[in-house]
Amino acid sequence: MCRWLAYSGTPIPLEELLLKRDRSLIDQSLHSRLGATTTNGDGFGVGWYEEGQPPRVYRSTHPAWNDRNLREIAAGISSPLFMAHIRASTGTAIQETNVHPFRYGKWLWMHNGLIRDFAQVKRELVLAVDPSLFPSIEGTTDSECMFYLALTFGLEDDPVLAVERMVGFVEKTGRDHGVEHPLQMTIATTDGTSIWAFRYSSEADSRSLYFSTRMDTLKALYPESVLSLLSDETRAVVSEPLGDLPGAWNEVPEAHVGIIQPGADELRPFVPRA
Amino acid sequence: MCRWLAYSGTPIPLEELLLKRDRSLIDQSLHSRLGATTTNGDGFGVGWYEEGQPPRVYRSTHPAWNDRNLREIAAGISSPLFMAHIRASTGTAIQETNVHPFRYGKWLWMHNGLIRDFAQVKRELVLAVDPSLFPSIEGTTDSECMFYLALTFGLEDDPVLAVERMVGFVEKTGRDHGVEHPLQMTIATTDGTSIWAFRYSSEADSRSLYFSTRMDTLKALYPESVLSLLSDETRAVVSEPLGDLPGAWNEVPEAHVGIIQPGADELRPFVPRA
Amino acid sequence: MCRWLAYSGTPIPLEELLLKRDRSLIDQSLHSRLGATTTNGDGFGVGWYEEGQPPRVYRSTHPAWNDRNLREIAAGISSPLFMAHIRASTGTAIQETNVHPFRYGKWLWMHNGLIRDFAQVKRELVLAVDPSLFPSIEGTTDSECMFYLALTFGLEDDPVLAVERMVGFVEKTGRDHGVEHPLQMTIATTDGTSIWAFRYSSEADSRSLYFSTRMDTLKALYPESVLSLLSDETRAVVSEPLGDLPGAWNEVPEAHVGIIQPGADELRPFVPRA
Amino acid sequence: MCRWLAYSGTPIPLEELLLKRDRSLIDQSLHSRLGATTTNGDGFGVGWYEEGQPPRVYRSTHPAWNDRNLREIAAGISSPLFMAHIRASTGTAIQETNVHPFRYGKWLWMHNGLIRDFAQVKRELVLAVDPSLFPSIEGTTDSECMFYLALTFGLEDDPVLAVERMVGFVEKTGRDHGVEHPLQMTIATTDGTSIWAFRYSSEADSRSLYFSTRMDTLKALYPESVLSLLSDETRAVVSEPLGDLPGAWNEVPEAHVGIIQPGADELRPFVPRA
Repeated sequence: MCRWLAYSGTPIPLEELLLKRDRSLIDQSLHSRLGATTTNGDGFGVGWYEEGQPPRVYRSTHPAWNDRNLREIAAGISSPLFMAHIRASTGTAIQETNVHPFRYGKWLWMHNGLIRDFAQVKRELVLAVDPSLFPSIEGTTDSECMFYLALTFGLEDDPVLAVERMVGFVEKTGRDHGVEHPLQMTIATTDGTSIWAFRYSSEADSRSLYFSTRMDTLKALYPESVLSLLSDETRAVVSEPLGDLPGAWNEVPEAHVGIIQPGADELRPFVPRA
Repeated sequence: MCRWLAYSGTPIPLEELLLKRDRSLIDQSLHSRLGATTTNGDGFGVGWYEEGQPPRVYRSTHPAWNDRNLREIAAGISSPLFMAHIRASTGTAIQETNVHPFRYGKWLWMHNGLIRDFAQVKRELVLAVDPSLFPSIEGTTDSECMFYLALTFGLEDDPVLAVERMVGFVEKTGRDHGVEHPLQMTIATTDGTSIWAFRYSSEADSRSLYFSTRMDTLKALYPESVLSLLSDETRAVVSEPLGDLPGAWNEVPEAHVGIIQPGADELRPFVPRA
Repeated sequence: MCRWLAYSGTPIPLEELLLKRDRSLIDQSLHSRLGATTTNGDGFGVGWYEEGQPPRVYRSTHPAWNDRNLREIAAGISSPLFMAHIRASTGTAIQETNVHPFRYGKWLWMHNGLIRDFAQVKRELVLAVDPSLFPSIEGTTDSECMFYLALTFGLEDDPVLAVERMVGFVEKTGRDHGVEHPLQMTIATTDGTSIWAFRYSSEADSRSLYFSTRMDTLKALYPESVLSLLSDETRAVVSEPLGDLPGAWNEVPEAHVGIIQPGADELRPFVPRA
Repeated sequence: MCRWLAYSGTPIPLEELLLKRDRSLIDQSLHSRLGATTTNGDGFGVGWYEEGQPPRVYRSTHPAWNDRNLREIAAGISSPLFMAHIRASTGTAIQETNVHPFRYGKWLWMHNGLIRDFAQVKRELVLAVDPSLFPSIEGTTDSECMFYLALTFGLEDDPVLAVERMVGFVEKTGRDHGVEHPLQMTIATTDGTSIWAFRYSSEADSRSLYFSTRMDTLKALYPESVLSLLSDETRAVVSEPLGDLPGAWNEVPEAHVGIIQPGADELRPFVPRA
């Protein structure tokens, strides 16, 4: 089972969330507590935005905990919006082109979960990708396939609708092949300004997903803490809570999507569309 | 431009042709003489057969000349039929799943050359792969795509016909997209008993390909040499001559296929079929 | 904490012990039960002997569970004597030259444990290595340093004495630097004919080590099993039991050395020599 | 033969010199013109400084020309002082700990050349390293050994004197072992403020080294060019000229050291000290 986090707010060095504290993302990769598998050593990726630049991505197929380049980069780069993902393969090859986050133009995408019986349905799914997008697919995972389907269904215009249509299509295709519960997912995607975080599974028993509590609430709870350095807009979404601060994390309900955006954040039900 | 060799005959340690002599395959990867690019550092693969076993494949994305595991394996393994390939990418990603030879069941396949404007035609080509074969595609290269098209067109039953149909299909698809010369190739494929080696290009100006001279002729020319240890049936096919023995190599003519097989070998014209 | 196994007896494909059964060595690397760390993803090595050949070694810094080349090699190579090691680094770099087993001439060496405060004592230890051996050191681990010290103290002539002197020297050097318990180790070394397996620690609380039960006993216990295919001489030594066969494994006592050799095997107390 | 560059001046994205133009450093790694070997595929490293931070280093053992992470980082990071190195191994292992630049505190160091018969003299050289510095040595190269000897001889206080003493010591040690010409080097080292670039060899026939012409001169020669964006203080030192601008590069004379520093730069004779 993969692990991921997405961060938006006051620019901080990547290492703050990836490496520094107990129960950081890297620490989780060694000792997953809520995950279905005990080790996440099949690849690590981080994507980040800097002022006026397209997103950059660092990907590695070495276990994150012994990747020295990652430590250098995570210490040297600060960003107001970044995503990181630790992979536990569900069968596809261990190679950089299969490491999340995936990128298309200014968009990043990452996924925890799987399309069940992907080998059976892959051909149909891939052939539904828009022919103009098809050549940009670089890897072989179900996760990247979902990204290109979402792009085909209009991710750049209406992200929630596009993901709802993508999920509907994947579920229909799976069920046509006799797969009872075709899809399991938490997904984060961003255009560099907002972050959309989805929690859904065909069996209504999705993997965990947490939003950080509003910063003004947290600052009131912990007035002396380093949190005072972060803007009230600062938020994180994670597959598993980071750190041990009571009250800091709220579980995203089953079949919901959360949106971190300029102005008020949102939490809405998520309904696949056939 | 890639480099490759295929060997059939008296079992020898892989290192004899891969590593040992001046102008071995590895030496060529550092100092390509006839190739279009000066360096072949984008991956190395070797596939070999042993008595009663399916083919095994070792693949690496490190440059062959500094791969210590390759040296160990090449020294420790002897085989009567093996293939090796050094990759110079024409654009697709550097990853093990893109390293030749590709394998399907008892078959191995490797390629030097390219499908021009592959990104434009890939979707149509992949769509033509038999749905039962589709899930076995692991990488993203034009070369592997050609292999699965050839399998779709009957490689296991009639290899020459299947490759002629594959080439005809690739050329038609390319020309439909306005590509003047869609295909450039030398290809070797084997079922563990025979080797088929193809030289063809749409522009009738194919990359080089050489067959070793008949062993009885070579032994008569060099009666004192180590060649006396090799059976009369022993043959090699290479993209560029190995070693410096005068008279040892004969160029395969443009648009021909050579077949190394039990009994008399064959050399025939190669004609794509639409 | 590392994991290792050493095998001697009827030639078998490496995959039989490395990959095939539940609780194989690779399975252990994902779910260590008796180890001090939960994951062993910092490198994998296997060394093997074949008739009349020097030992060959395959080393990788990718986690063993997703190394495709390892699967190919382990399926294709049979050997009457081999060793395999899965590394969990205690601090030194993740690189092939730090992967066990280490090799010198016909000897292989692997280690689980550590020299405590190695950075403090390394210079003195390395200085004690015979100048003629010094240039052969390729990596930076405590384990390889112990190997070269043992070679300096006569490993090739009297392995038990040499390791006793090495341990005595390492303990003295550590204590001179104020280290209370300088050494923790299980070690296996072989010349291709016999295997010496050591269990020792300065604090008399060593990591686990198991010998397989005599084959004639096991065959009497399990007369219908595949064990009948193995010679009575066949033995394995492992850091943690493989498989689930009751009665198959016997713990090596604290501060002992076991010797698998032609004729009767031996088990003796191990006493460091200053 | 390795290739390197060092840059100081107006902050620019790393990719400007590493990747962008014809005859960039990466381009050189594929088609070395002045080098002793034709390919530099044995590792790539870049070290950079940012305001108020210690130097960061990215190292890879993949060929630079197909390293995607390098392209991301080189596009995303701007720096006023950086160094990059492409390695062609003279024998030591291909691993990240052997990739230049090496780092100690705020210092970086890189080298093109070799200590001849290094295996013979390594033990003596390593034992001359200050015991407090010894544990920081991570790799196995002659180049890193020279760095730690220079640190031992006072690099942090007087870089030119320290390198002169290091070279004198290496030459004496080599000659004691019967090596006629012990050392061949171009070296760049920096503390983040100044850069020292050395050209020297025992045989007085050193590998090439070039300084960029003074910016005011270049701007007068090319008043319309992008050079106008760079400060007059901007300078680069390279093993082989980048780009094709006539008059842009001046060869550093045999046995000289150049110093790029705040205020007037310097060029002085270099004299080893016994």
